[in-house]
Amino acid sequence: MQIIEPINLMEKFAMFGQLWTPHIVGELNGHYLKICKIKGDFVWHSHDNEDELFMVLKGTLLMDFRDGRTVAVREGEILIVPKGTEHRPRTNGELVYHLLFEPASTRHTGKVNSEMTVQKQQWI
Amino acid sequence: MQIIEPINLMEKFAMFGQLWTPHIVGELNGHYLKICKIKGDFVWHSHDNEDELFMVLKGTLLMDFRDGRTVAVREGEILIVPKGTEHRPRTNGELVYHLLFEPASTRHTGKVNSEMTVQKQQWI
Repeated sequence: MQIIEPINLMEKFAMFGQLWTPHIVGELNGHYLKICKIKGDFVWHSHDNEDELFMVLKGTLLMDFRDGRTVAVREGEILIVPKGTEHRPRTNGELVYHLLFEPASTRHTGKVNSEMTVQKQQWI
Repeated sequence: MQIIEPINLMEKFAMFGQLWTPHIVGELNGHYLKICKIKGDFVWHSHDNEDELFMVLKGTLLMDFRDGRTVAVREGEILIVPKGTEHRPRTNGELVYHLLFEPASTRHTGKVNSEMTVQKQQWI
């Protein structure tokens, strides 16, 4: 039987410093579990076919939507962004740690190509 | 546009008391996000076609496997149990809060029918 070990998220966060760069920590049912450190503004984007889950582990994530609303997602809170919904993650100047859960095929900037787009998915 | 609100997990946990009864708090890509309060021993079971994710939010979850290993999953840790792997969640007498992420079709006791099996999935 394969060895099944727990994944300690804070230990994983300590292993990288790059902002806006999701790192894969687990996989199940064709989905990746990723962690990300963010600070400042990301790019507006959407995912045509995938809902996306954000769970905040440190700080407050701000999510802008095109109707002008901004949703604050605090530590211990989860936000699910339905497919096709344009969104822009950002923070109020603070460093925020969050977890992402999305299909393995999802690019973090959707169809948008930006200098922030990471081309290669990285396991940690 | 639909209203997208954050899900506060501790507020959701405060809304029910039943043990070993997963409550659905969100849905994405055909998967449910569920929360569960557990204490004591669950039943041995497996899921033929679905990997299952456990994330501990309070206390320590113990997961027994048929090779005799027990994995302790602490607060802030995640365990992914691959499909087909028999497992038994339990706790060392303490009340444990955890999050589950699994396909909407998953029954929490797999193919096992037990008095602990919940027949109807419940949103909260």
